Amino acid sequence: MCVHDLCYAQVSVVGLGLMGGSLAAALRGNCKSVVGIARRCETIEYALTHGLVDHGTTDLADGVRHADVVVLATPVRVIIRQLQEIAPLLPQGCLLMDLGSTKSDVVAEMARMPDHIQPLGGHPMCGKEVSGVETADPALYRDRTFILTPLPRTSEAALALGHALVRAIGAHPLVLAPHRQDCLMATLSHLPYMLACALVATADATTSADPAAWEIVAGGYRDTSRVAGSDVTMMIDILLTNQEEVLKAISAFETQLRSLSRLVEAGTEEEMRTALTRIREERMRMFP
Amino acid sequence: MCVHDLCYAQVSVVGLGLMGGSLAAALRGNCKSVVGIARRCETIEYALTHGLVDHGTTDLADGVRHADVVVLATPVRVIIRQLQEIAPLLPQGCLLMDLGSTKSDVVAEMARMPDHIQPLGGHPMCGKEVSGVETADPALYRDRTFILTPLPRTSEAALALGHALVRAIGAHPLVLAPHRQDCLMATLSHLPYMLACALVATADATTSADPAAWEIVAGGYRDTSRVAGSDVTMMIDILLTNQEEVLKAISAFETQLRSLSRLVEAGTEEEMRTALTRIREERMRMFP
Repeated sequence: MCVHDLCYAQVSVVGLGLMGGSLAAALRGNCKSVVGIARRCETIEYALTHGLVDHGTTDLADGVRHADVVVLATPVRVIIRQLQEIAPLLPQGCLLMDLGSTKSDVVAEMARMPDHIQPLGGHPMCGKEVSGVETADPALYRDRTFILTPLPRTSEAALALGHALVRAIGAHPLVLAPHRQDCLMATLSHLPYMLACALVATADATTSADPAAWEIVAGGYRDTSRVAGSDVTMMIDILLTNQEEVLKAISAFETQLRSLSRLVEAGTEEEMRTALTRIREERMRMFP
Repeated sequence: MCVHDLCYAQVSVVGLGLMGGSLAAALRGNCKSVVGIARRCETIEYALTHGLVDHGTTDLADGVRHADVVVLATPVRVIIRQLQEIAPLLPQGCLLMDLGSTKSDVVAEMARMPDHIQPLGGHPMCGKEVSGVETADPALYRDRTFILTPLPRTSEAALALGHALVRAIGAHPLVLAPHRQDCLMATLSHLPYMLACALVATADATTSADPAAWEIVAGGYRDTSRVAGSDVTMMIDILLTNQEEVLKAISAFETQLRSLSRLVEAGTEEEMRTALTRIREERMRMFP
């Protein structure tokens, strides 16, 4: 049976990169103990020295043996592999969460886990274009939305414990169905990544050879291309586990770009003004 | 004959919005006097009260009569109209600059000005998604690149005075040919605007109806869409005076997006890794 109060829980975090390291650091003091699990000894040493975890180990079985909550903080396809590997190692009633950016595939795999585990999909809406335990920041989750995708089998107590964990790190829980979260993320996160990458590739193919380009890259380019600096392994996992929705979002974008492009080509000022003003107002409504 | 030293110059700024108001404020104290010219009395009053200008007027002829330097800080197509209107009002040897984001059309019009004027195209690489005199900020130009596009007729003394003005506001001058600047800007500035707009339009058409979308719009979307909040009148002028280069840039982008999209569709991991890693490195090389 899972513990009801986070402050009595041992939380084990698997993977101590930006996301896992930050989660561990934010949880310390809010639960009985935080155990960090990583592949490399150096990562564990760093996490211990910098107070990110109470205990650390490179041995998965050892690190989760007495866990009340386990959080997988690895790239999505690693999570999917780890779910089956970790199942026999977990104690009865253990809450098993993840931080993967796509949820349909993860939750489908969670549904196949043995009954003694309480699975709960998770996706915090934060991140940075840096990686590694050295970038861990306990404030990373503060005031961010943290999506939870419970399964039909997830107990109320387990879901409540998941909510408590999210609130303990300063984030706001939002329960969504996995497919709905993946559709939304395709447009609001994965599409921006693809556009940022295609923009950098365009500059690379056309203007980068001109030394003046480096002196005039302005704020617009910098911001629009920012997420092209995201971790490639993480993004490949995201794109390949949300392929269909990402391709739909790209196709919807192409239609919109084509339509704006036609307005510029036609040079019809009033139509341009109507379309661009509507878009500007929509942008301002989203980010007042 | 134009003055050689900026500190003896009267500089008249036509248009006191974000760009003109900020320029006036940054120039005050670096020249003999700054005269602000705007259409609305309220703008002049605000500029005087807040110390953005030494003098202000709504009368163009009056404001430029004794100017050593005149800077047109209006949208590009207004600049093009104003160039011919202002010509007979300017004293002998007056340096006439502008702050328009596209330069081919402006410089073509400058070439037709009467001989007693020294024209010099200008384009500072800065801006914000706000407008109006209330947003003026003397630090706006600091450490930014300021493109100068001299004409064959522009004298060395006039170009030197333009350089002095750019340095006085804390910016770095960069001399470019008008068409080269327009090509570069199409990819590095106008394309990002089109992408940001098409992204917002895509979200508007697909996910905006879902209330959860508003809770999960993450940093990637916010940054990639930021410039969609740019002033519409300014952007229409830019797009219509750089139409050909903008359409070329969009087309180059479509090719790159299609190629990335095909990689996702094929799901060929190693090819994805090669392409996305190369892009990530290019992004990091541009913004270390």
